[in-house]
Amino acid sequence: MTQALSPLPEPLFATVALIGVGLIGSSIAHACARTGAAGRVVIHDRDAAALARAEALGLGQAYAGSVAEAVREADLVILCAPVGANAEITQAMAPALKAGAIVSDVGSVKTAVVAEVGPRLPQGVHFVPAHPVAGTENSGPDAGFATLFRNRWCILTPPPGGEPQAVEKVRAFWAAFGANVEIMTPEHHDLVLAITSHVPHLVAYNLVGTAADLEDSLRSEVIKFSAGGFRDSTRLAASDPTMWRDVFLNNREAVMEMLGRFTEELTALQRMIRRGDGEGLFDLFTRTRAIRRAIVEQGQETAAPDFGRRAQEDAV
Amino acid sequence: MTQALSPLPEPLFATVALIGVGLIGSSIAHACARTGAAGRVVIHDRDAAALARAEALGLGQAYAGSVAEAVREADLVILCAPVGANAEITQAMAPALKAGAIVSDVGSVKTAVVAEVGPRLPQGVHFVPAHPVAGTENSGPDAGFATLFRNRWCILTPPPGGEPQAVEKVRAFWAAFGANVEIMTPEHHDLVLAITSHVPHLVAYNLVGTAADLEDSLRSEVIKFSAGGFRDSTRLAASDPTMWRDVFLNNREAVMEMLGRFTEELTALQRMIRRGDGEGLFDLFTRTRAIRRAIVEQGQETAAPDFGRRAQEDAV
Repeated sequence: MTQALSPLPEPLFATVALIGVGLIGSSIAHACARTGAAGRVVIHDRDAAALARAEALGLGQAYAGSVAEAVREADLVILCAPVGANAEITQAMAPALKAGAIVSDVGSVKTAVVAEVGPRLPQGVHFVPAHPVAGTENSGPDAGFATLFRNRWCILTPPPGGEPQAVEKVRAFWAAFGANVEIMTPEHHDLVLAITSHVPHLVAYNLVGTAADLEDSLRSEVIKFSAGGFRDSTRLAASDPTMWRDVFLNNREAVMEMLGRFTEELTALQRMIRRGDGEGLFDLFTRTRAIRRAIVEQGQETAAPDFGRRAQEDAV
Repeated sequence: MTQALSPLPEPLFATVALIGVGLIGSSIAHACARTGAAGRVVIHDRDAAALARAEALGLGQAYAGSVAEAVREADLVILCAPVGANAEITQAMAPALKAGAIVSDVGSVKTAVVAEVGPRLPQGVHFVPAHPVAGTENSGPDAGFATLFRNRWCILTPPPGGEPQAVEKVRAFWAAFGANVEIMTPEHHDLVLAITSHVPHLVAYNLVGTAADLEDSLRSEVIKFSAGGFRDSTRLAASDPTMWRDVFLNNREAVMEMLGRFTEELTALQRMIRRGDGEGLFDLFTRTRAIRRAIVEQGQETAAPDFGRRAQEDAV
């Protein structure tokens, strides 16, 4: 089902600048090296330690101390910092961008990114927002690996009236990493991701937070006996705090909408338990099984207990 | 860390009867065959198809058409049916039990089991309730494997004043399967499991149920883009509906208590998002990370993306 990433005959972009070198930024750097999608990769991170670590790992060809320096020669700039930093980064890079450069990002929310970044870009620069739907619970320059995006979705939300060729080039870039590229509006993206990603993370954070607030003696037992289901939640709840704070602050409306539906259903479920409505519980638990089956059947998923994650990482 | 299951020098029980041959029952049968912990295994299931399948798979040495027939010669009887069936099963087997036989179970709730089963057992029979904290999202006689219990906890909740030797024999039985055996009261068990297992499952069922109720067009996209976090929940929400209905009906009080804490926290979290309280969100998301770290450090867990599940199944 999966296949190795193959080198391209020639680079898609002469120079790619990565602003931020966490899990996603470092994975893009690895994927560029593996495929040759970029002639050279220039890396900037406002965290000097992360930048030094990226250099020690040899993730790029150049390491820039400022955003402006990083983007000066770039044909493609990818914002890989937490979403909340985008406005400031865009402000800093706008005067330094080449005419005809493409600016993209990897943010998990898109409406807010479009609103923050788009109006701050100079004319003659193409904006193609992107969201690779891939990740692990690890973060930082050491967390990346070349195959993170393979067989994962990458959603583009280009503004109407944008340059089709710029969209095409960004699509080809992600396709080179093995991603399946989809195009949708930022609003639709944010609604779909609210239920597939943001609310599941919120619920996991909340479950683990509830355990963290237990009496000491009970909490240590929760850790001890976590294999019964709790442990699965802790993986999501170990994700990068800054990134997720920014996701919730920047996709507030869609998250609130989906969280509202979630709590409505939870109240109904709670009522079924209180009233001892076994039939209602059985019905719900049967319906949810069908969704799982549909996900496994859709091919990019697997029934294997690690969802194919092990295979990905083995391939690094 | 894990090690192969080794054959015992001699059986711990001459005859073991398994009442119910789902994931846990069939895994016990495999583990008995692998370790020789039982001289012979007699299997009954009220579902004739499951019983026939167990026979086709060669899971036991005898297959009984009734509970009474199954337990007649048993030195150890293990109730492996959904918890809600225990009262009826106990009623049916009580007159047929050998004097000195040990009755145990594998139920995920213990207070209710103790109340349902204990008083229905004849004098001279020893009751040692057990809960192996292990499972997968699969069910039925085909789902079992010998190493399911290896490096997992098995919690015993023996009634006060019971026969210490009976407890010791049940402990040795589970230890032979590689389980780490703990003893606690049924009440404490139910509270710990409510937060480590029952509420996480409830939340996962609810999340997937919320998605199931979405408009058709949105729902198909949720399935498509499930890799962003939702997919992890669907694994828990694919667990056996009958088993989980019975868990919630039989551990109502502890589940309600923990669910109450969960919804309180969720309301506070929702308020943080609505008010844009980035600092509060960041703090929570940092605290939850520490819990994950503690779980990984506790040794029976792993940082690997499949929580060691792959290794378990490979070993079958």
